[in-house]
Formats: sequence, structure tokens, C-alpha cells
Amino acid sequence: MAAGCWNSFLHSFFDYETPRTIVIYSKRVGAIFRFTQFLIIAYVIGYVCLWQKGYQETEAVISSVTTKVKGYTASNTSALGLHVWDVTEYVIPPQGDDSFFVLTNMITTPGQTQQACPEVPSPSSRCQSDEDCFEGLSDVRGNGIQTGLCVNYSDTVKTCQVLAWCPHEDDSSVPTPALLEKAENFTVLIKNSVRYSRFRFNKRNILAHINSSYLKTCIYHRSTDPHCPIFRLGDMVRDAGEDFRTMAERGGIMGILIDWSCDLDWPGKYCVPKYTFVRMDNKNPTNNVAPGYNFRYAKYFNNGSKETRTLIKGYGIRFDVIVFGTASKFSMLMTVVNFGAALSFLSLVGAVCDWFLVMCTDKRNYYSQQKTTCLYNNEETAGESISIGKNYGTS
Amino acid sequence: MAAGCWNSFLHSFFDYETPRTIVIYSKRVGAIFRFTQFLIIAYVIGYVCLWQKGYQETEAVISSVTTKVKGYTASNTSALGLHVWDVTEYVIPPQGDDSFFVLTNMITTPGQTQQACPEVPSPSSRCQSDEDCFEGLSDVRGNGIQTGLCVNYSDTVKTCQVLAWCPHEDDSSVPTPALLEKAENFTVLIKNSVRYSRFRFNKRNILAHINSSYLKTCIYHRSTDPHCPIFRLGDMVRDAGEDFRTMAERGGIMGILIDWSCDLDWPGKYCVPKYTFVRMDNKNPTNNVAPGYNFRYAKYFNNGSKETRTLIKGYGIRFDVIVFGTASKFSMLMTVVNFGAALSFLSLVGAVCDWFLVMCTDKRNYYSQQKTTCLYNNEETAGESISIGKNYGTS
Amino acid sequence: MAAGCWNSFLHSFFDYETPRTIVIYSKRVGAIFRFTQFLIIAYVIGYVCLWQKGYQETEAVISSVTTKVKGYTASNTSALGLHVWDVTEYVIPPQGDDSFFVLTNMITTPGQTQQACPEVPSPSSRCQSDEDCFEGLSDVRGNGIQTGLCVNYSDTVKTCQVLAWCPHEDDSSVPTPALLEKAENFTVLIKNSVRYSRFRFNKRNILAHINSSYLKTCIYHRSTDPHCPIFRLGDMVRDAGEDFRTMAERGGIMGILIDWSCDLDWPGKYCVPKYTFVRMDNKNPTNNVAPGYNFRYAKYFNNGSKETRTLIKGYGIRFDVIVFGTASKFSMLMTVVNFGAALSFLSLVGAVCDWFLVMCTDKRNYYSQQKTTCLYNNEETAGESISIGKNYGTS
Repeated sequence: MAAGCWNSFLHSFFDYETPRTIVIYSKRVGAIFRFTQFLIIAYVIGYVCLWQKGYQETEAVISSVTTKVKGYTASNTSALGLHVWDVTEYVIPPQGDDSFFVLTNMITTPGQTQQACPEVPSPSSRCQSDEDCFEGLSDVRGNGIQTGLCVNYSDTVKTCQVLAWCPHEDDSSVPTPALLEKAENFTVLIKNSVRYSRFRFNKRNILAHINSSYLKTCIYHRSTDPHCPIFRLGDMVRDAGEDFRTMAERGGIMGILIDWSCDLDWPGKYCVPKYTFVRMDNKNPTNNVAPGYNFRYAKYFNNGSKETRTLIKGYGIRFDVIVFGTASKFSMLMTVVNFGAALSFLSLVGAVCDWFLVMCTDKRNYYSQQKTTCLYNNEETAGESISIGKNYGTS
Repeated sequence: MAAGCWNSFLHSFFDYETPRTIVIYSKRVGAIFRFTQFLIIAYVIGYVCLWQKGYQETEAVISSVTTKVKGYTASNTSALGLHVWDVTEYVIPPQGDDSFFVLTNMITTPGQTQQACPEVPSPSSRCQSDEDCFEGLSDVRGNGIQTGLCVNYSDTVKTCQVLAWCPHEDDSSVPTPALLEKAENFTVLIKNSVRYSRFRFNKRNILAHINSSYLKTCIYHRSTDPHCPIFRLGDMVRDAGEDFRTMAERGGIMGILIDWSCDLDWPGKYCVPKYTFVRMDNKNPTNNVAPGYNFRYAKYFNNGSKETRTLIKGYGIRFDVIVFGTASKFSMLMTVVNFGAALSFLSLVGAVCDWFLVMCTDKRNYYSQQKTTCLYNNEETAGESISIGKNYGTS
Repeated sequence: MAAGCWNSFLHSFFDYETPRTIVIYSKRVGAIFRFTQFLIIAYVIGYVCLWQKGYQETEAVISSVTTKVKGYTASNTSALGLHVWDVTEYVIPPQGDDSFFVLTNMITTPGQTQQACPEVPSPSSRCQSDEDCFEGLSDVRGNGIQTGLCVNYSDTVKTCQVLAWCPHEDDSSVPTPALLEKAENFTVLIKNSVRYSRFRFNKRNILAHINSSYLKTCIYHRSTDPHCPIFRLGDMVRDAGEDFRTMAERGGIMGILIDWSCDLDWPGKYCVPKYTFVRMDNKNPTNNVAPGYNFRYAKYFNNGSKETRTLIKGYGIRFDVIVFGTASKFSMLMTVVNFGAALSFLSLVGAVCDWFLVMCTDKRNYYSQQKTTCLYNNEETAGESISIGKNYGTS
């Protein structure tokens, strides 16, 4: 009847089953027991918690960067004459976002117009007669598209005629020293705001304790001014272990790494950016194409009808501001996962000790008898167990 | 002999060792047992599974963004006269990638040429005689490189002569209201396709259910048109809690955050982008350098021989489209890790209850005697374990 | 006294408590026991370790990219005449960073000046009299800002006059085939250096075993030259399953995915980039606005006083170099977490087998009697525990 069922259910519901145990007092076993216990607990506390911060969840940074370069320098070249360079001219692109290029050296080819002119002499461009040239052919190493004619490059040399922006650029020799090597004195202001949206944390690299007057004068220095957001180009390159003047000649790529890794269980004020500077491109490896960093750009003019341009092959240093870092904060989930996992190793302790107990102690037989009861599947061996069974029966 | 070994191996192989247990029927212990069990299971199901989705692995998004701004506005300045601005002029750079700048205000300095002219009067540039000027000196706050001469800036003021692009720009006063403050009516179409490569999931922010006619007319609105990919600049700034006209004067940086966080255990159609708009730069903090956002760029002209340029100091709003989010999907590994970890806490239940059993129950001695057998390390004491047994009986 | 306390403490400290067990020799139970054990261990070894690399921690890549396009092509249009295009003209922006645009088709509108001219005829721009036009109105689909006048567009059609860059661009028909469809023969050199800062690992996509002579001539091919960093535009588009010439007409966006996923437990030389090419924009979906990819830019000229410009609506392919990947390396923490978690499942084996033991074996009563002792809360039932105690004693 229902009442009976209910009772039996209650009974079984509140039954509590717990293993029967034997307590052994043995210095050796006990010592091993405590020692293994200690090892695992020490590991959990020390390594998982303190060292690896296993109780935290992490989030990647969202960032926004603005850069503003300042400085003037002058160059004196045959092509341009004495020329003063300001930010508008030597920073490309001008917007000042997280990747900016500072012009340090250049090869200028003024007055280029679209016309046909003889190719620069080279094994592939030299010719004896029109048969050696092919109309429409465009040699990747050449300067334009061949017209099919073989014309005089000089009194002695004949080369294929090409349709191109003429006169051709001659980039055989790069100005040394770099025309704008003074660029090492330029300064750049880097404004960087970061946010960890999940943790509702915003911050900028201009820290709260920095006042405007300091900002007007300071220059970043690893040890003396680690939080000044204004950087001298030369200093950054030196910090990366490079020589600015050498780098300026053929250009290169610098990485400005801003590390925002923070432990947000601490107050936000301890979350400050760490700057590091590295050269991202490979300086002089054995296997390299187009070493350094350069690109060509042009200023277009239109005198009356004809369009002319000034072609500039610009060498310089591209600065990539790379913001990275992960914020970490206490998380119930991670705590449980990491501790639970470590905890489950405690179950090993018993196994280790039991093994030691029944293998390596002198009383091993005695212990194992106490600990273990063997049941065999034929009646007479089961004898001893029968009696127990009986008792149950009688109870 | 081999047969024997094989048998004994089989024997030991199929031996199954299981702890002996006692079942105690006690409402109090049982209650505690069930309660702690319940707590842990509830935690696992509720928190780890449902809340934290502990059974999922995550992947970061790969994204591609295109933007296209539309709109016209006119300005009327002494420098340019009545001038109509189209996208080509006020969006920089023109490519329309994930970061675009909309010009809202400017200071134009037409007809600059490379020449020597007196510096703008300032404490550092004023001079009495050539001794006060230093050839080659370039003051960061100045406009060029000093020639070493002290010349008349006006009838009353003498300043050091500098080699620079003259005439100098005068950015002492920013036009108010902003010349292109009508830019708030401009619209931008944002095309964004994302992919979670590991999960083989692609999607774009123009959702499948959106038809072309809707796209031609719609404007994003948080509540009424949350999936329209066309945004009105003014709306975005207002959503970020800013005033467009104020922001337009000195410029700033807006973040268009597109959140693609998705639970891919659900059908892909539920994976839709969430747009939020924040101002990334710091509006008016106590400590700020170069507030707002502006940069200088120039148009270069070549009248015959002499190169002239129109320098433009452009203030405006840079919109950074920041796509982020992590997709999460069922993962066998994560499931096992998180459940296993939580599971291992169940082993604590026994410990808790046993402690309660032998400490806090009135029958504690009786229980502990039943549960535990003490072995001492000398023969006769081993006999005494019988007496313990007896004691139980007699007790 | 203290000595006593100390002894008792020591005693309890070295006490070792271990469960009493019974060993059952039963093929069926043993089989189940071993089988479940095997399942879990196989899972841990096979899936967690080998497949999911559960013992490793991961880190996201930091990357820097440079690109350099090479090639020439010619176009012959009424607007420009025969014109040779070099990198400086068709790659925008020229810097060659991780996203570059290659011009493949264009609509040129030379000689635009700021003036008032009749709007292009359209339902919204047609007018009968000035009443139909509204001064200051700027139609998003129009070309400028209306002056409020209604003027003759042709002898038959009258449209509202607008202040704009005139003459208007006519982009009703896109040149077919694309003017620069030969761009498929252009090549791009991609230089990419990556770093895993936590793992102190740097590498570049120009691998150590590649020599300069090979670099001068090689072209990437999935199977024959998988490590050549020079790519032919046409090949990349084909690899993405697209047709370059079709794509060239209206433009599009290509993703160059560089996967640097590496198992850094292996030597670094096995960490090589994997290139894949995908079309990021949606080719021809039912719902699309502004299909393909294009943008307008202009070259500004200044003939004497008046500023003129050449407006170019450039169609082309934007290549986004997307570097991604995570490095994985052995981590003590992860190992413990994942193994510990899996380990805790072993505790389930006992539960399963015990259930089977006392439920499904023919000797179930006998086993359960041996395994379990029931304590009831009245004295006489406790008597039965004596006999058990005895048995131990006598054994």
C-alpha cells in the first residue's frame, strides 16, 4: 500500500552508505600518506593558484590607437634643391593611425611623363634589331611595355623601346647617408585607449597621475619615464638594438608592442601599459628579397594638357603599434575546473599508499588479510562468508 | 607451467575489488548526505552547463570590412570660397576599409611654397638680433628650420627667420561651428563578412532576410532597424552619448563595435551582429595633449617650375570598425574537463558526511566502531581487534 | 602533560585509514570492470592527449606584414588615351601594408571644377520650374547641392541645377572587359614575420631553406611551390574558385589567409605557414547593395587660380592579408587540469560495477550481503556485527 511504499522510499532515500575502513598506525605508511598528500596540496596551492592563476578567466583587449609625429628636417638634393620636410610630407599616410611610415631616404625622379623611351640597358633589354623586341611584352624587371622597336639608348648601346613613365627611375644607388637621417630626433605621441568589454574596464595609456605640463616636455625612457606616451624615434630603434642611421638608409619595420596584460583582481590603477620595441623585418638574412622597406609614390601635376608626375621611391621606417595583452579576473568556473581537477589527484594518494601497504611493509600479509576479504565462487570456500550470510538471514 | 600462469593471470585480471560498506539509516546524516549531493549537482547543472556553457569550446572571429560613405555638404570660407564637398574629398583614406576618417572642420593654408620667412611670434621665436637665432635649429613648436637671421615679422616685432613652407599656418582659432557640421547627415554602409574557420561558419552583416529594396531606404536604429547595415553618422555619435556638432569642431574617434558572439549549437540564423558605438578617445580629461583628432595633409601643385601646396589641417571623426566576438560550440574535451572537474567534488560529499557521522551524531562511538577497525603493530594487539568486535557486540 | 599530547598527535598524524574491500572473482563483473576502465583510459590517452592535445596551452600570433606588387599593363581609353600603368598608379595605398588594393577597372572623369550645372536626369532631379527644386537640398542619389534653379539639361529635358564638381561622372556603364584585366599577371611578394612572445618564438614566411636565387624566380603554387612567398594575383583568385576577369570588372575582396598554427613541442622548423585564399565579399547574393568593390579618388590640379581635378571611380580587388593561428606548447597546468578531470571519471567505474554487482549477477544477494552491512538503530541488530568482528579475529 502507498504508505508502505512511501516509507520504504524515505528509508532508502535517507540511507547513507559509507565504506568500512581500517586504521593502521605505521610510521612508514603514515609518512608516505602525508607526504603524497602534501605534494599534491602544495602543487595546487603553489602552482595552480599562485603561479598559474588557475582561478581566473581571461579576455583579449580591444584597442584604439592614434599617433602624431612632430619634427622638421632639411635635405639638399640635386632633384629638389634645399628642401624642408614637415610631417605632412614625410609621414605616410597622414592620418596617424596605428601604423605610420616615416620617410628617411628617397630617390626622386621629377618630370616623368607618359611616352616611349629606350629601356635601361640590361641583359634582357639590350637588342640589335627590332627582332629582339616584342610589342606588348612587359618584363617584370623592366620599366614598361615594349613597343617592339630597338632604339639607341646611347651612341653605343641599343635597347628595346618601352612605353612608360619616362625618364626612368635610376635606383641603382641609394643616397648614403640617408637624406633625412635627422628623423631620429622626431617624436611621436601615441594615444592608446583599451577596453575589456566583458570586465567593463577602460583605460588609456595617458595615466591619471600624469599632468599636462609633464606631457608637454616628457620623452619616454624605459627606466626614468616609463609612462610618458611621447617617444623619440631614435630611442625606440636603439631600444630594439638597432642603429637608426643604418636602418634609415634602406628602411625597415619597427614594432611598438604595448602590453596591457593585467590582473584585474587588483585595483585598476595597477594596470599600466608596458612598452617594448622590436625590429619586425629581418635585417640581413642570407635569403632575402627586397631587404629593408620602401615603396614608390608620386605627386601628379597637370601643366596645361600634359600630365607629369614626380616619382618618389621612399625608403623609411614603418612603425606598427601592436596592442596586445589579456586581462584576467576571478572566475567561479575556472576555479572549480582547476581545483576540481587537481583535487581528483588526491584520490591517487590512497592508491599509492595501499600499494605500498600490501607490497612493501613487513606485515603485508597481515594487513592485506585485514583489508581484503576474498570471495570464491564455489560453496566450500565461501564457507566463512556463509556464516555471515546466515547472520543476515537470522537478523 | 604456462597453463597455470595463464590461469592465475586470468584470475587476477578478472578479480574485482570493491570496498565494503555499512549502510546507516539516520535521517540527519542522510539529510546532510542528500543535501550536499544536491548542492554540487545543482552547481554543475545550473552554473557550469547552463550559465557558463562549460561544455563548449570557443574560437575568435576572422573578419573583413568595407565601408562606403554617402552625402554632400557645402562650406563657405575665405580660403576656398563656396565649396561643395563630396565623399572623394572628405573621406580619408578613400578606400573605405575598416577605419575611415570623415572631415568635419579644417584650417586651410593655400599657396604655400618652400622659402624663408619670419617665424610666428612666440616667446621662443622672438629675437632682437641674429645672435638670438641659431642656424639649423628646429624648434618642435616652431614651423621650420632657423636660418640664423632675425628679421621683421611686423613693423614692431622681430622673429627668427625659418626655412619652411610659407606662409605659415595659423591654427590659433578653430572655425566654430565646424565647417562641415552637416556631416551628421552623412550615411555609411558597412559591409562585414565574418568566418569561424574551425567551425566552418561564414556570415555577413547583411542578413538573408533583408531584401534589396529595404537596403536602399533603411537607416540603422537600435530598436526599429537593428539589422540595417546603413548608419547615419549623427545617430552613431548620439548613441555613444556625445553631441555631433561639438565633436565635429575638434574631432574625435568613434568605435563601431560589432559583436559576433554566437552560440553555434543553435542554428546559424540566430547568429546576428550586435552594434554598439563608443567614443574611443578621451573627451576632456584633466590631462590631455592634442585633444580631439586632427591631422595635416596637403595637395601639391606645380605651376611651371615652382612647387606650391595647399596645406589642410583637417579635424574630423575617425570611425574604427572593431569586429570582435567568439563563437562557442559543443566540444567533447571541454565537456569532460568541466564535468570531470565538478564531478570530483562529489568525492567531498562522503568526507563531509563521515566527519559529521563520527563527530556530531549521538551514536558517534557506535558508528565509528562499526565503520573503523584499528590495527596495532604487535601480534597481541591484533587479537584485540576481536575484543573491539566484542565490544560492539556488548555495547 | 605535553609529552602525552605530542604522542597522541603523532599517533593520529601517522594513522593511515584505508577502506576494507572484498575481492570478487567473477568473469562477468571483472569483464565489465576492465572494460569500463579501458574505455576511460582509452579516451584519456587517445582523445584528450593525442587528438585534442589537452596537455598544451595556446597563444595567439603577433604578426607584421609587408606586400610589394610588381607588373605593368596598358589601357587605351578616350579619357586618358594610351596609358601605361605601373605599381605607383594602380596600387592604393602605395605603402604595401597588410591590405592593398589593385586597380583593375575605372571610370575617369577629367577636368572637374567646382561650378553649378544641371543634375543628371532622374525621377527625382527632373523639374518643370524652379518650384520643383529646393535650394540647399542634397539628394543622396544626386551629385551635389541644389541651387533651387531649374535649368536645361538638354533641349528637351530640364533638371534641377546643382552646385558640384562638374561635369558629373557617368558611371552608368562599367567598361567590359576590365581595362586592366591583365592585372592577373601581376605578382605580389608577401613578407610576414610572426612572433609568439610568451613562447619566445619568431619566424618569417621566407623559410631558412629558401635561397635568394629561388626567390627571384619562384611563383607560389599549392603543391609544387607551397613555400614561395611570391603570388600571382590570377592564381590566388583561381584558388578561391573565382574567375579573375569577371571579378576585375566590378571588383571584390580577396582574403589571403596565412595560418601559423603550430605545435611548438616539435622543432621550430616544422612550423610553416599554410596559405589559403577566399573571396571575402559576397559575389552575387539576392540581397546586395553596391556589389563588388570600388571607391572614388581624385588627382587635384591647379591651373593658375582654378582648381580642377580628375575623378576616378576605381574598381578593383582588395587583398586582405589575414594572419592567424595559435601556437600550442606543453603546459603543466593544462596537463593537470585535463588529466585530472578525465581521471575523476575513473571513480565512476566502481559505481557502475557495484550497481551491476548487486543488481544483475545471479549471486547478487550473496554479494550485497558481503559488501554491505546494514546498521539499524536498535541494539540487537548491532549484535550481528560481532560475528563479523570475530571472523576477522579468527582469520
